[in-house]
Amino acid sequence: MTDATPLTIYRDTVRPEWVDYNGHLRDAFYLLIFSFATDALIDRIGLDDATRQARGRSVYTLEAHVNYLHEIREGTPVRVDARVLAHDAKRMHLYFEMFADGHDGPVSASEQMLMHVATQDGPKSAAFDPDVAEHVAALHALQRDHAPPAFAGRVIALPARR
Amino acid sequence: MTDATPLTIYRDTVRPEWVDYNGHLRDAFYLLIFSFATDALIDRIGLDDATRQARGRSVYTLEAHVNYLHEIREGTPVRVDARVLAHDAKRMHLYFEMFADGHDGPVSASEQMLMHVATQDGPKSAAFDPDVAEHVAALHALQRDHAPPAFAGRVIALPARR
Repeated sequence: MTDATPLTIYRDTVRPEWVDYNGHLRDAFYLLIFSFATDALIDRIGLDDATRQARGRSVYTLEAHVNYLHEIREGTPVRVDARVLAHDAKRMHLYFEMFADGHDGPVSASEQMLMHVATQDGPKSAAFDPDVAEHVAALHALQRDHAPPAFAGRVIALPARR
Repeated sequence: MTDATPLTIYRDTVRPEWVDYNGHLRDAFYLLIFSFATDALIDRIGLDDATRQARGRSVYTLEAHVNYLHEIREGTPVRVDARVLAHDAKRMHLYFEMFADGHDGPVSASEQMLMHVATQDGPKSAAFDPDVAEHVAALHALQRDHAPPAFAGRVIALPARR
């Protein structure tokens, strides 16, 4: 059994420039917070800015899904927990949940597919370098036995379908 | 047969504060542009800010999916085309494609589920008012016979599946 402790990867506070006419965090800025969480996770697998520059590497988002579960107001502190659901030689399937003070469950969830690229001759998809691949596999193994994520594998449709 | 002309709902230019360390539009800001397009579509169905305030109505995003197809740089002019793929009494399934100067096909696509709410006693899902429902149905009818959207109904998974 692995430890079921979530991997908290990012913390922030809902900023004044992120709220809409209702005073609530605008939909796109939930994704910005998840995007900052992705940056933190990319650092965590050994691809910080300096390494990306030195090696000519980058990580691109191919697709992102966001579920909006609760409104949150300006000034609310939030945290993001991360999971690596799956990976192959050059891609990671990530899952995030955002939590906010005053809410028991998540206020939002996001699922993302990221691709590793070599940037030297125009960006081209490329296998993770061995040291990075090891970090990716370790993060995946860390939570492999956790309960399946609540908001992954979803399709948007009317009427709703799985 | 309906006219196959796309419904261009929003235009903008990639702003300096939206680009990442690579000088490209950051993933979350594609969704911000789609969010502005959604605002424009909400105006178009007769729910502009004044009407929302007067009637105690709002529209919430339940879920958003974004596909990233091409990088775009600061200063690039973009346009967003919109479709209402489906609707029921209180929900709309929207589809957007973003186009940018210098690219033939879309640079991004987004699928969203929106819910109409009455805001008087705390937000509660509510049927569209009849005049608004008529606009929603008209927008849906406008493009019902168009080709199926390329980036709708997608699931994120490794290995990929439909």
